[in-house]
Amino acid sequence: MTTGKGDETRRSILDQALRLASIQGLGQVSIGLLAGAAGLSKSGLFAHFRSKEQLQLAVLREASDRFVGKVIAPALREPRGEPRLRALLDNWLRWETIEFPGGCPFQAAADELDDQPGPVRDYLVETQRDLIDTLATVARTGVDAGRLRADLDSRLFAFELMGILLGFHHMHRLLRSDDAERLTRAAFDALIARSRT
Amino acid sequence: MTTGKGDETRRSILDQALRLASIQGLGQVSIGLLAGAAGLSKSGLFAHFRSKEQLQLAVLREASDRFVGKVIAPALREPRGEPRLRALLDNWLRWETIEFPGGCPFQAAADELDDQPGPVRDYLVETQRDLIDTLATVARTGVDAGRLRADLDSRLFAFELMGILLGFHHMHRLLRSDDAERLTRAAFDALIARSRT
Repeated sequence: MTTGKGDETRRSILDQALRLASIQGLGQVSIGLLAGAAGLSKSGLFAHFRSKEQLQLAVLREASDRFVGKVIAPALREPRGEPRLRALLDNWLRWETIEFPGGCPFQAAADELDDQPGPVRDYLVETQRDLIDTLATVARTGVDAGRLRADLDSRLFAFELMGILLGFHHMHRLLRSDDAERLTRAAFDALIARSRT
Repeated sequence: MTTGKGDETRRSILDQALRLASIQGLGQVSIGLLAGAAGLSKSGLFAHFRSKEQLQLAVLREASDRFVGKVIAPALREPRGEPRLRALLDNWLRWETIEFPGGCPFQAAADELDDQPGPVRDYLVETQRDLIDTLATVARTGVDAGRLRADLDSRLFAFELMGILLGFHHMHRLLRSDDAERLTRAAFDALIARSRT
């Protein structure tokens, strides 16, 4: 199997689309606008993505693959418990600050789509539920390894960790607070401290 | 001073505009769209708000006034420390669930505007900074009253409380999780427990 020119073009289009979604929101990612940004014809783009909806789904799928590759998978190679959770935090902060010029494309999409039913919202919700489940699983493996408290409520842990990252996004992206990372790490340390055996 | 018909019309327009901002996002609140929703002429709306930007600012100002009136002010009438913080949480959850059909209009605006410089973003950032400061002040008055730990980092407390509410918004609005409120209250109780003297 070779990676043909079509795949390469598709990848480069998705790169542009992710950038656009990160800065302006997923709602702005239309075939017309993207054609301009990618220097392609609208009909050329239609050959890759048949509709705005298909294009938006492809963008979210690409973002999801990258999040797994850059944030989740490398963390899962660390030892269970605190080292794994700390790697997750570090990777996630990198994702929020370096990976995308306009911040996490999921975050940008979440408030746009929360009242707009359809397959794009469904996909976003599914990935976000998976994420909460993954965080809870990472906490539970830390419990199983005897490194986190046996009576830890892993879903509550996942909720609290998610809240800390949402707080970081809010303080860093919107408020441009200098101490966003300090607060995030202090809240994370406190969460770990109260979850230890 | 009497409240004239103009004020009444303006209030009813802002009601519609807030509803629209809550469901569709602030970016959708344009004079044209609002004229349709409010059953007024575009030129009639222009008499009240000279531009889309002025209209959006008026919407955020109205939302801010209501948030202070419904969430902050009644909480400040409760005794310092835990009762005041608990009233704040209860009022805030009501704000997020009952007050607006599409969830908090600030939340809806935050991700839309984080990369769009201008007076609307500036105003939003100012209100959100004020909010974090208010939360920190509420925590500090609890410390001064001897009801919260003397060494409490009030800014970190404010960050953690904000994260819990952002988490609620995420789980309730986007994921429609049945246990959003349980998780929020459990995380809040844990925050209070570790902040007590």
